[in-house]
Amino acid sequence: MKTDLTATRVIPILGDPVAQVATPRLWNAVFSDAGTDAVCVPIDLPSQGLGAFVDWVRMARNVPGFLTTIPHKAALAGACDRVEPDARILGVVNTIRRDADGMLVGEMFDGFGMMDAIEATGTVVSGAQIAICGAGAAGGAIAIQAIRRGAKVLHITDMAPARAADLIARLSVVGQTELHVGIPQVADIVINASPAGSPGEAPPAFPAALTDGATCVADALTDPAETALIAAARAGGLRVVTGTDMAAHQAARMRAFLGLQEAVAGPR
Amino acid sequence: MKTDLTATRVIPILGDPVAQVATPRLWNAVFSDAGTDAVCVPIDLPSQGLGAFVDWVRMARNVPGFLTTIPHKAALAGACDRVEPDARILGVVNTIRRDADGMLVGEMFDGFGMMDAIEATGTVVSGAQIAICGAGAAGGAIAIQAIRRGAKVLHITDMAPARAADLIARLSVVGQTELHVGIPQVADIVINASPAGSPGEAPPAFPAALTDGATCVADALTDPAETALIAAARAGGLRVVTGTDMAAHQAARMRAFLGLQEAVAGPR
Repeated sequence: MKTDLTATRVIPILGDPVAQVATPRLWNAVFSDAGTDAVCVPIDLPSQGLGAFVDWVRMARNVPGFLTTIPHKAALAGACDRVEPDARILGVVNTIRRDADGMLVGEMFDGFGMMDAIEATGTVVSGAQIAICGAGAAGGAIAIQAIRRGAKVLHITDMAPARAADLIARLSVVGQTELHVGIPQVADIVINASPAGSPGEAPPAFPAALTDGATCVADALTDPAETALIAAARAGGLRVVTGTDMAAHQAARMRAFLGLQEAVAGPR
Repeated sequence: MKTDLTATRVIPILGDPVAQVATPRLWNAVFSDAGTDAVCVPIDLPSQGLGAFVDWVRMARNVPGFLTTIPHKAALAGACDRVEPDARILGVVNTIRRDADGMLVGEMFDGFGMMDAIEATGTVVSGAQIAICGAGAAGGAIAIQAIRRGAKVLHITDMAPARAADLIARLSVVGQTELHVGIPQVADIVINASPAGSPGEAPPAFPAALTDGATCVADALTDPAETALIAAARAGGLRVVTGTDMAAHQAARMRAFLGLQEAVAGPR
């Protein structure tokens, strides 16, 4: 037995389905480039398998944690021993770390990823007026990080206005940002965090005057990443953040959380 | 949701420890060469995690099964819903297939691998006289396949003679081969399936007259694969089978069992 060896670290990503998820390909390319002895693998698991999955991961020495996508984000928030602040507000996790004592710690990184990507364009979030379309888990996570990073005013719109109102009620404890349901007249940063703009879906209901006057326009969609919203903003010379940009920043946060690379700069 | 996609198939190999196991590297090279969308990953799991591991694998749609090494081979034989004939005799498995209904079927492939490798040298097992050193799981598995393939006489020796006697008692139901404890005067095929010849261990207790008169000499060791036994046989112009040869043949059987490639030729 060679005791000086360490097994390749394995990071599963759970989904149902999971075949559409690009994370294993993207992460494995990063591991390969960085010379990191780790592999991300998809696991196509129905909800009934989550309890057993969590139980063995607690004991697996070369599994630093795992990722999850639809539909397991809420169930796994409940299965964690501890959830970090953003996940606690949202009730969903997308990354679960296994600590040395077997404890599972969850967090939701969509907000970190989007706000890191926006700040990487040189756009200042602190003091900004921000408009978000979509009050689901992604929109909520983005809103939390906008508040934590000092946004002055935040408007949230959703196809279901009650959902936006519910989210704003949960966000009121996070910080000092002025919160509104709806679409503002002006904003520095305009963000789509809804399915609007996906193939077969109408684009987000932002008026042209709003986006034209913004400093930065962002869209969480990755399929396509070049949405009509992004294309118009790019044509207008604005700073743009695509879903691919957001995903890259989010992934760096997730790997840092799992101890797979040095921590990234920026607020927690 | 893209329903035409299939998630990469994931084949874990469980051990405690598992870092020393070459299987992920070897299998992933085969998958890469063959264009098979599958990945083998090590999982370093203590015995307490086996129950939960088995439970989630039953439900994981892109996990066709898993492999195991020391010390989980016996515990997992007990966890299978069905064990194939060789594994049933030995009470150990090294490969567990998940069938579409979630049932787990286990088998032990050491014997298939060694006998396939010996036959691949042109050596005829049917009617042969065979000497095996080592009455553990590997020696037992090799003995079973020697009997199933029509060996005429089989001698088994072990540092603990009682262990060889116990194995022979279990083998008596397998076939018509004449079975003996000990080392014969002559043999067509001489096989080491014990740790003898590992670094710091004495070589197997086969007399030179026995190996010199053989047609084929085989050794299950892979570290080193070129043991003193193998080197002497090679120098004497005999057919040789190394642990690396055996492992390659065994792996092909295991992948076929898991539905990962076409079935290999040869007896089951």
